[in-house]
Amino acid sequence: MIDTPSLVDQYCHGVLRTELGLGTFESHLGRGEGPPAPGTTFFDTQTGFAVRRWCPPLLGLEPHCPAPHYLARRRELGVVEAGRRLLGGSGITTYLVDTGLPDDLTGPAELGAAGGASAHEIVRLELLAEQVADTSGTVESFLANLAESVHGAASAAVAFTSVAGERHGLALAPEPPDAGEVRGAAGRWLAARQVGGELNDPVLLRHLLWIAVASGLPLQLHSGASNPQHYLTRFARATAGLGTDLILMHGYPYHRHAAHLAGVFPHVYTDLGPALVRTGARATALLAEILELVPFGKLLFSSGARGLPELHVVAARLFREALGRLLGGWVSEGAWSRADADRVAGMIAAGNARRVYGLAAP
Amino acid sequence: MIDTPSLVDQYCHGVLRTELGLGTFESHLGRGEGPPAPGTTFFDTQTGFAVRRWCPPLLGLEPHCPAPHYLARRRELGVVEAGRRLLGGSGITTYLVDTGLPDDLTGPAELGAAGGASAHEIVRLELLAEQVADTSGTVESFLANLAESVHGAASAAVAFTSVAGERHGLALAPEPPDAGEVRGAAGRWLAARQVGGELNDPVLLRHLLWIAVASGLPLQLHSGASNPQHYLTRFARATAGLGTDLILMHGYPYHRHAAHLAGVFPHVYTDLGPALVRTGARATALLAEILELVPFGKLLFSSGARGLPELHVVAARLFREALGRLLGGWVSEGAWSRADADRVAGMIAAGNARRVYGLAAP
Amino acid sequence: MIDTPSLVDQYCHGVLRTELGLGTFESHLGRGEGPPAPGTTFFDTQTGFAVRRWCPPLLGLEPHCPAPHYLARRRELGVVEAGRRLLGGSGITTYLVDTGLPDDLTGPAELGAAGGASAHEIVRLELLAEQVADTSGTVESFLANLAESVHGAASAAVAFTSVAGERHGLALAPEPPDAGEVRGAAGRWLAARQVGGELNDPVLLRHLLWIAVASGLPLQLHSGASNPQHYLTRFARATAGLGTDLILMHGYPYHRHAAHLAGVFPHVYTDLGPALVRTGARATALLAEILELVPFGKLLFSSGARGLPELHVVAARLFREALGRLLGGWVSEGAWSRADADRVAGMIAAGNARRVYGLAAP
Repeated sequence: MIDTPSLVDQYCHGVLRTELGLGTFESHLGRGEGPPAPGTTFFDTQTGFAVRRWCPPLLGLEPHCPAPHYLARRRELGVVEAGRRLLGGSGITTYLVDTGLPDDLTGPAELGAAGGASAHEIVRLELLAEQVADTSGTVESFLANLAESVHGAASAAVAFTSVAGERHGLALAPEPPDAGEVRGAAGRWLAARQVGGELNDPVLLRHLLWIAVASGLPLQLHSGASNPQHYLTRFARATAGLGTDLILMHGYPYHRHAAHLAGVFPHVYTDLGPALVRTGARATALLAEILELVPFGKLLFSSGARGLPELHVVAARLFREALGRLLGGWVSEGAWSRADADRVAGMIAAGNARRVYGLAAP
Repeated sequence: MIDTPSLVDQYCHGVLRTELGLGTFESHLGRGEGPPAPGTTFFDTQTGFAVRRWCPPLLGLEPHCPAPHYLARRRELGVVEAGRRLLGGSGITTYLVDTGLPDDLTGPAELGAAGGASAHEIVRLELLAEQVADTSGTVESFLANLAESVHGAASAAVAFTSVAGERHGLALAPEPPDAGEVRGAAGRWLAARQVGGELNDPVLLRHLLWIAVASGLPLQLHSGASNPQHYLTRFARATAGLGTDLILMHGYPYHRHAAHLAGVFPHVYTDLGPALVRTGARATALLAEILELVPFGKLLFSSGARGLPELHVVAARLFREALGRLLGGWVSEGAWSRADADRVAGMIAAGNARRVYGLAAP
Repeated sequence: MIDTPSLVDQYCHGVLRTELGLGTFESHLGRGEGPPAPGTTFFDTQTGFAVRRWCPPLLGLEPHCPAPHYLARRRELGVVEAGRRLLGGSGITTYLVDTGLPDDLTGPAELGAAGGASAHEIVRLELLAEQVADTSGTVESFLANLAESVHGAASAAVAFTSVAGERHGLALAPEPPDAGEVRGAAGRWLAARQVGGELNDPVLLRHLLWIAVASGLPLQLHSGASNPQHYLTRFARATAGLGTDLILMHGYPYHRHAAHLAGVFPHVYTDLGPALVRTGARATALLAEILELVPFGKLLFSSGARGLPELHVVAARLFREALGRLLGGWVSEGAWSRADADRVAGMIAAGNARRVYGLAAP
């Protein structure tokens, strides 16, 4: 049996601090633009079934017990104690936490404490820029403060994360915009913007990516559910040799394309992220697909979990089971040696992330 | 063993009424633009092998017997009796039949009678519009008759089906065209058209989709073998909350994308359709892939069969076997509970279709 | 056990003639734009693990022995003897060799002799055109010499191969350019070109494809890692019925799309190529995916190997094992008959290639 003694979760969010009823809990299992369809429930998904498989035993219940029983037990223990038991049972010993969501979630320190784990901050570039815009009076001060904020964040955080690809996808040019373009775009955006307004300007998104690249901190790139190949090939080529690593986040259903890019460019890495939790019983199959082309030193575990500690647990359990089953199967067939399988399991579970993000060994 | 006692086939066509020789039968196993390549035969495909596996026993022969023996036995029984034995052995108890093909195939009543099953009509929007055009003298009468015909059809049929996505693919704008555009397009199309001419105008195709949406009847959307994500995401967003369900048809090889959309939008559903028959021994693998992201209340069985009752049989048998093997495997591993697996099998086989199309329980 | 007694490799390159150190050998396992990332090695890939699995036993070592041991043994035997043992143990009895690379690799005769196999030449169209340009003084002589060279090559070679799709991808129009366009493009290209300059002009690339189509020799089309469907559908439709076969090369991760096209067009074929070596332990899964839609008379084995005889060996061994496991599994389940499985294995391994390229039976 291949074992992975501890996991580094290279991308997640914190958890909710409030008690949850059945409906509120269910809403965190969906991933859509609306409630479940009439006659259906988000519990009837791979995510819902995986939560009911892995989490009840950590709270002293049978696997697959009905959701209302599970929620009743969760409330009986209280959100803090339930969170402690769940996170503590996940096998994750280091969390890298994206703090850039508007939700009221626990931060890195609180998440780490609840899980008996270490935790580090990932800074979301777009939120940082929006916060700078909220407090800058002029275009000049905005641009100066922006550069200073990114470089300041780089000294405290372990990574930057960007959703520019989700907001502009394939339309984003790979090269940095010139100073005049940036000033013009900043002027137009600031003039039209209300406090809290979202950064959507493609020139400023690119400018922000390039300030981050200059910082040298690893840069995580989210591309939504669209094919990363076209845009990211050009961006990867433009940033090759600059010394900053790029991590392509959550590529499913384009995880084979992301793996391809990680094999082509020395500074490109990838993960599976929330695809593990979303596809549940199929986690082994997805892991197998991404392990076709990705060099084994280029794949990182992450949960992508948000809001419910159940999602951190499920991601971690599915990943460990999938890795054990897949690599163990290759050893049984004679395709891999046992020593190689153990070594690669440790790399994907933790070692690669420790190297890329400069984390201390446990 | 997971069992699915009866199937609702949410999309198929009727069968041929004529006796078939080896060559004619073979031509219905291909899916291409031409005959088989020199030195090859359409029997040497997953479809051909699946037909030879499942159908001979229903006519009293050994599985995998040579195709000429099978065809000889089929002719010996006669097309009616062979059809009765095949359809009767499929396990399908309700057929939803697209009557919009030019071929001379059995209609819903005749198909249902042959299979000892109930049957309902699906109306193909483009054919309806072409028929209205054949009998309307002016733009005004065409547009009035079109609206009336769609609404009339909605009271007798269980669903509309549209091939607009196949005819115009990603180029189709999601919003309804305005009245002036529609009148202009209708004028140009009618003026250039001969009786029987195909509806290919993108403005009229969109107009027709939106009349159908207004009827409230479920709307099946075929997108050919192209990525449905771009166009359908926008159309799904435009129709969200209007009360009409959309069923994304036959997404392979983009079935994961279709499953994604079914998870994002409450009113979006999907199926595998003819991919089951086309991929034969791989049906379990495809079902596994679509069950990654699709909420279990959003997937519907269909055969997509056309012309040969063998195709209805093969789709149904492959589906039942795949579902049993896949869900049974997840139960054995402990990933799913047995009760959940039985319940989900019944939903995909029949329950979801009964709810979406408003069919009576058996 | 399904067996495939001999293989026709329908696309490969020759091997290096020089002794290799660890670093040089490793560089041939990567497929990227640069060295391995810091802290990683190309040996930690499916390719690296597959080489360590299959090749050491052919040189008298244990499977999975450390890479330095393997390389030491390889140097001990010498490049000629090691190559002889490796190629001789591959099971490949016919090589079709693309001679159009700049590297100093063994040609067809030398490769065949080393492997105890027959070998034939595949001519790369773009290199041929560049060589003609190097020796032609005027536009008129270039165009005349080009046509003559292609037709001359057609009498000695078994196939043409083109990388036009990699150089211009989806931008390439399917129809032949007219004579005026061709003369204009040739004039501009020749005027700007230095000796050895690469053919990148889209009009000349199309012209070259159409001269090749006119020759009647099978034409292999490389499309890089981009979706072949858009461009190739149109080119396949434009060339249908002309009597020239097209072979879509190495479609991964679009191998399902390539298989679809091979099912639609009588004159279209496909392979898996280097995806076997690149994905190693996953070869069975890839073969399963391409066997969903491809008619069994339309799939050809190839290694895509280049430089290292280890890559020819690994492709052949992975392919035979994958074919045996996959088809054997279908026989065990009752999905296929044993006789059909044996017959199809022989077709994919060798029979289809013999028919398409007009090769003599062994």
